[in-house]
Amino acid sequence: MQILTAEMLEKSVDWQALMDGLIAGHKMPKAHIGDTLLEQGGRKFLARSAWIEGLGACTKAVTIYPDNSQQKPALPSVQGHLIMFDEATGAPLALLDGPAETRLKTAADSALGSALLSRQDAELLLMVGAGNMAGPLIEAHLAARPSLQKVLIWNRTEKRAAQLAADIKRLTGIDAEAISELDEAIPEADIICSATMSEKPVIKGALLSKGTHLDLVGAYTPTMREVDNKALARARLFADSFDTTLDHIGEYKIPLQRGAIQRSDVLADFYGLVDGAKGRLDDDDITLFKNGGGAHLDLMIAHHFANQ
Amino acid sequence: MQILTAEMLEKSVDWQALMDGLIAGHKMPKAHIGDTLLEQGGRKFLARSAWIEGLGACTKAVTIYPDNSQQKPALPSVQGHLIMFDEATGAPLALLDGPAETRLKTAADSALGSALLSRQDAELLLMVGAGNMAGPLIEAHLAARPSLQKVLIWNRTEKRAAQLAADIKRLTGIDAEAISELDEAIPEADIICSATMSEKPVIKGALLSKGTHLDLVGAYTPTMREVDNKALARARLFADSFDTTLDHIGEYKIPLQRGAIQRSDVLADFYGLVDGAKGRLDDDDITLFKNGGGAHLDLMIAHHFANQ
Repeated sequence: MQILTAEMLEKSVDWQALMDGLIAGHKMPKAHIGDTLLEQGGRKFLARSAWIEGLGACTKAVTIYPDNSQQKPALPSVQGHLIMFDEATGAPLALLDGPAETRLKTAADSALGSALLSRQDAELLLMVGAGNMAGPLIEAHLAARPSLQKVLIWNRTEKRAAQLAADIKRLTGIDAEAISELDEAIPEADIICSATMSEKPVIKGALLSKGTHLDLVGAYTPTMREVDNKALARARLFADSFDTTLDHIGEYKIPLQRGAIQRSDVLADFYGLVDGAKGRLDDDDITLFKNGGGAHLDLMIAHHFANQ
Repeated sequence: MQILTAEMLEKSVDWQALMDGLIAGHKMPKAHIGDTLLEQGGRKFLARSAWIEGLGACTKAVTIYPDNSQQKPALPSVQGHLIMFDEATGAPLALLDGPAETRLKTAADSALGSALLSRQDAELLLMVGAGNMAGPLIEAHLAARPSLQKVLIWNRTEKRAAQLAADIKRLTGIDAEAISELDEAIPEADIICSATMSEKPVIKGALLSKGTHLDLVGAYTPTMREVDNKALARARLFADSFDTTLDHIGEYKIPLQRGAIQRSDVLADFYGLVDGAKGRLDDDDITLFKNGGGAHLDLMIAHHFANQ
């Protein structure tokens, strides 16, 4: 069995290859997926499993200890590994560092969403939130849409946004700038990628310009959302996976429960889009993509690394 | 993270230490457990998770490909690993070979059942079935009840029983013998350990002598059972875990559904027995122990190996 460390996974990432892996995975028979979530106090233990006929099977087991960030010295709040199995023989093939695989999977997921849905001439990327995921997300978006010329970064604490902007400039050579007024930047953006820990919408739909692509990454619980009903009403709605978003993540679950949107308003997930479902119809459309994740996406990414 | 191979786990096993680990684990707060089972055709992918406050967390992910035994060359039908996490920090501590851990856990489970329930002067062990588990089960029973003087082994194909008897003699020095007539051996046995793949009862309760301890290992699906209703009616009934047996394994599930026994007839599981629940009341009692397994038992065994 190969042991793939975080360093090995994150060295010279080929975003196009990861997107190709996701596309290939969605052309295979639909994934069987299942989660086991155990909780004690504010801590969680999550085992996510997937099996795709012809591709393989995997389980990612992680502890989620939010209080770890307050330890001295601070410890990672998410720790664990993904184990991937060969479809033909059932043999264990590879053990991947869980947090690194998750970062790459999440960013590649958003990149594919943009490649399928954003305008091909998109020039300005607005990154909302400057947490751990922001760097990989910006890199992945730049790879998915090479027309991008500039990155604006907004964060609750501007200092972190400025640091990330400097890092992005250094690593990619692209023009990057921290901003303090989110509402002023929203109408300027061609692509907005949001990865905050917000419970309440941070992006006002009324401010969006025609043609914008919204990539929503941050919300991952039934109570979290990053955009308001106005954004949902103005946009063509998509997701990476119906199964992991509609009934599980507040971004769609809350407006569905309240009747602000119907299930049929979420037009397609990756299975549909890869199979030819209509995404963007014209340059004026606002497209909204919810990145919700799922063990089947982890499996497709793990398959790429285990077989490269 | 420690990588513990099958060879490392199975080298000079200390059965008493494994039993002590199970006892200690059952004195801790009750385990949170959960399974994810995915199926395709006759093949299964199973991820079993447990979390015990103060002890740690683990997930065991295994593929179960029954058809692997027909491959040329034959492949193992169960393959995978257990990953164990530190309770205090959430960090991954150890990766254990799944099939080896399962063999040791299963045998230690039966050993503890015998230590808690069989007669202290038991002399004759009857092993029913000579599959992969039979060797470790016999060794564990010998460790749990040092009064044992002789082992009889019955198997559908006698040749395999003879081979195992020779192995046991060589490895343990104890008198071991293959037999062809199961019904003749049953009344002679002080302890009967059954590990068959039978769907239908192989052990007739009417043949049991007073004082016998029945250790039932083989049945693991809702349709499997190894003893008949007569055995259940004559015995004091126990299990390693109420949670993994009563509603999940045919041994108790079928007679419960048919009204042959009531839930209250299953008197205690390991949590109760370790806490002082009455097991055997006198030397004439027949005791029946269903070994059903469960991720919490895997966790206790993994904790032993990760911390030794």
